[in-house]
Amino acid sequence: MSNKLNSEKRNSFHVDLVSQNQVLLQSALNFLEEDDLLHLRKLLSASHPSEIADLIETMPAARRLEFWNALDFSLRGEVIAQVSKKVRSNLLEQIDVRRVVTETQNLDSDELADILQELPGKIADEVLLSMDEQNRRRVGAALHYPQDTAGGIMNVEVTTIRQDVDVDVVLRFLRRFTPKTHNLDQLFVVSRDNHLIGAVSLVDLVIANPEVPITKLTADVERPILAETKATEVTAIFEKFDLVSAPVVDGFGKLIGAITVDDVVDVLRAENDKKIMSTAGIVEDYDMFAPFVAAARQRSLWLAVNLATAFLAAWVIGLFEGAIEKMVALAVLMPVVASMGGVAGMQSLTIVIRGMSLGQVGSANSWSVISREIGIGFCNGCLWAIVVGMVASLWFEDFHLGIIVAAAVVVNLVTAGFFGAVVPLFLRKISLDPALAGGVILTTITDVIGFFAFLALAAKFLLE
Amino acid sequence: MSNKLNSEKRNSFHVDLVSQNQVLLQSALNFLEEDDLLHLRKLLSASHPSEIADLIETMPAARRLEFWNALDFSLRGEVIAQVSKKVRSNLLEQIDVRRVVTETQNLDSDELADILQELPGKIADEVLLSMDEQNRRRVGAALHYPQDTAGGIMNVEVTTIRQDVDVDVVLRFLRRFTPKTHNLDQLFVVSRDNHLIGAVSLVDLVIANPEVPITKLTADVERPILAETKATEVTAIFEKFDLVSAPVVDGFGKLIGAITVDDVVDVLRAENDKKIMSTAGIVEDYDMFAPFVAAARQRSLWLAVNLATAFLAAWVIGLFEGAIEKMVALAVLMPVVASMGGVAGMQSLTIVIRGMSLGQVGSANSWSVISREIGIGFCNGCLWAIVVGMVASLWFEDFHLGIIVAAAVVVNLVTAGFFGAVVPLFLRKISLDPALAGGVILTTITDVIGFFAFLALAAKFLLE
Repeated sequence: MSNKLNSEKRNSFHVDLVSQNQVLLQSALNFLEEDDLLHLRKLLSASHPSEIADLIETMPAARRLEFWNALDFSLRGEVIAQVSKKVRSNLLEQIDVRRVVTETQNLDSDELADILQELPGKIADEVLLSMDEQNRRRVGAALHYPQDTAGGIMNVEVTTIRQDVDVDVVLRFLRRFTPKTHNLDQLFVVSRDNHLIGAVSLVDLVIANPEVPITKLTADVERPILAETKATEVTAIFEKFDLVSAPVVDGFGKLIGAITVDDVVDVLRAENDKKIMSTAGIVEDYDMFAPFVAAARQRSLWLAVNLATAFLAAWVIGLFEGAIEKMVALAVLMPVVASMGGVAGMQSLTIVIRGMSLGQVGSANSWSVISREIGIGFCNGCLWAIVVGMVASLWFEDFHLGIIVAAAVVVNLVTAGFFGAVVPLFLRKISLDPALAGGVILTTITDVIGFFAFLALAAKFLLE
Repeated sequence: MSNKLNSEKRNSFHVDLVSQNQVLLQSALNFLEEDDLLHLRKLLSASHPSEIADLIETMPAARRLEFWNALDFSLRGEVIAQVSKKVRSNLLEQIDVRRVVTETQNLDSDELADILQELPGKIADEVLLSMDEQNRRRVGAALHYPQDTAGGIMNVEVTTIRQDVDVDVVLRFLRRFTPKTHNLDQLFVVSRDNHLIGAVSLVDLVIANPEVPITKLTADVERPILAETKATEVTAIFEKFDLVSAPVVDGFGKLIGAITVDDVVDVLRAENDKKIMSTAGIVEDYDMFAPFVAAARQRSLWLAVNLATAFLAAWVIGLFEGAIEKMVALAVLMPVVASMGGVAGMQSLTIVIRGMSLGQVGSANSWSVISREIGIGFCNGCLWAIVVGMVASLWFEDFHLGIIVAAAVVVNLVTAGFFGAVVPLFLRKISLDPALAGGVILTTITDVIGFFAFLALAAKFLLE
């Protein structure tokens, strides 16, 4: 106890973001309730825009507009850029578009493009027209690429230098035009027509003598990223090579932007979020506090798919009504067989999907993976078959029933291992996301095979 | 078709890491097969250590030692640092420890500490003793903190400066002692006794005039990270404030290291991996190509837990043997009721766990979240009850059976919504990981309630 107190004391200036958000939320809602905007603004002025964005996402939808209107104008642009997609489009429907323009002038091009893509076409055009020439060009370039590609997450503001100068010139240039880009760790060297030649790291620039020519410091860019590269592939490259920034080029090798690691961290987080949510059959961006009916509808698709597969399994059981009527113990034990197969299958599926995404499973070794999963299914199948068989024998005082249920467990776990490996490999072959559809397909298979194997074996050997 | 060809051509210099690994693996295995070490070394010399580490993880365990022995000495240290934990400890058992020492001299302190933690205590001590004083001190500091804390992922090599100098002095210092730290974006300003005073960004240093005093460029560090901070919290801070690096301090405010964003990206990836794997009940670091029996055993725990819960559900069914005997349709329909509840419950669970990890769900709004999930469960329950009820009525030509199964669906989906929200909140309260245990507990509840509600209602209203 005293130990805990002690560590709490030592942690007194440690910021726990999760509980901090809850505290902030409580205070903000209180101030809104009391209509005390002065204190609310004071509270928010100490917060980072991303913290305020979190607050908006956490409060009931009904409170959001009120809260938004209390926000300082200077903060609004950054906040709306940080809010999640679903919440943002909802907000954008309610606020004045002309204000959106003025509030978003000082944003990065990738953030502005994200916001514009949420707006209805006509309004987005209006907003684009109201911008000055330079901003319009910047945002236009970012809008050109889909959001899930390197072009969609890149920033078009890049500090470039020519190769025919020396360090001193570059330093003087930087002193005059302070680069706006954040997380800058290198400058890109380009030719007169903007072809990427290489990069100079900021550290090298700092430690070089002023008279050294830039060519001496220029390193080749080993992996310039093509604008069409998938965002998930970009995260893999950053992760593997520990990058802070990387240049983005078009098909002709021209530099068109740069990606920084903070964008990559956001993609990585979104990617995981998507993976987790898709296992529950929720594909769209999810707003925790969206109106009731919208939330219920969003979850309905998966329930519908599950209903269809559940009725398929029920139909299989229905084939053996006669057997169950003669021996009710079959109805009692059949969910056990099905669920063991389901768990074993999900283990194989999870491991194979993970292996595929890490590049550990592919054409070079898919057969060895499949046979491995079958083997593991057989091992565990035999082990648990003994347990299940013994429990069943004792429970229903019927040794033959025990043998039958044990055999069904082995069949189902081997099947589960085989399909747990084959289903994701097959889904990827036909370009479907295994993380989304794999679970349903697999549990349908293990349910159907589990019920069928057990009931058919019983009908054949126990009741004939 | 021509479109696809076209885009392939344009992508010709785009690197797809996943398929690249498969190609590399195939060639490496071929060279090993033919004992052609010359070509194997040539192939590997063009690869990044992390790519070679991926190769090792992807090849059958039996091939790994052979492959390791073919590796260039200069590469081995980096490669073993990059290999996943499970594969590494397996390798470390097979290779000469004295070599490990020589091969790992040039590693970062956090990487060295990771490796040492894998070694048996006696051997680790031996390795530590064989190091020079300075290296031993560095690694000792890193070993002091658990691996899942800021102290465990930090690097102790930090470039620090004093506040009473000017830019010119710092530049000359940097030119003489080129900082070894990678991903350096700021220098930390410390007092004589190493207390953290602030930070100077490299960009500011570049654009400042040489005679400017450092104090003018020093910015406060808003959030120095305490060494005991959880690694997952560190990732949240980096993500939220778009950091490239952050100083780590001890309880007295002394600078003891720094964390760079590449470490954070690794933690983020590992965190997700763990989340995904734990839904399948695999908690340890998983080696895809580990020996057969080890893999089977690793998956057994979850199957055992599932077996216990499946027998619990079977016992509930067993309570109603009499009812099922009178009306076999009950056995046919009962899995439908249970599985609808399971899916709805997993949706609530997933959404609430996600909300908790984003700080959107907590004490300030847990009741509103629970009532929301109950409400959504009721909405979807009523909707799907109608469908299930109608299908059942038509199938078995029994209107009353339809009513009963519909009522059971509503009961089970409301229960699922309630427990889907309560279970993770409760698990966190008692400091258990909801992602690991939540799914099993919840499906046990929805199975038991699903079977019980349906069979009990039927026994009461259809058969009495």
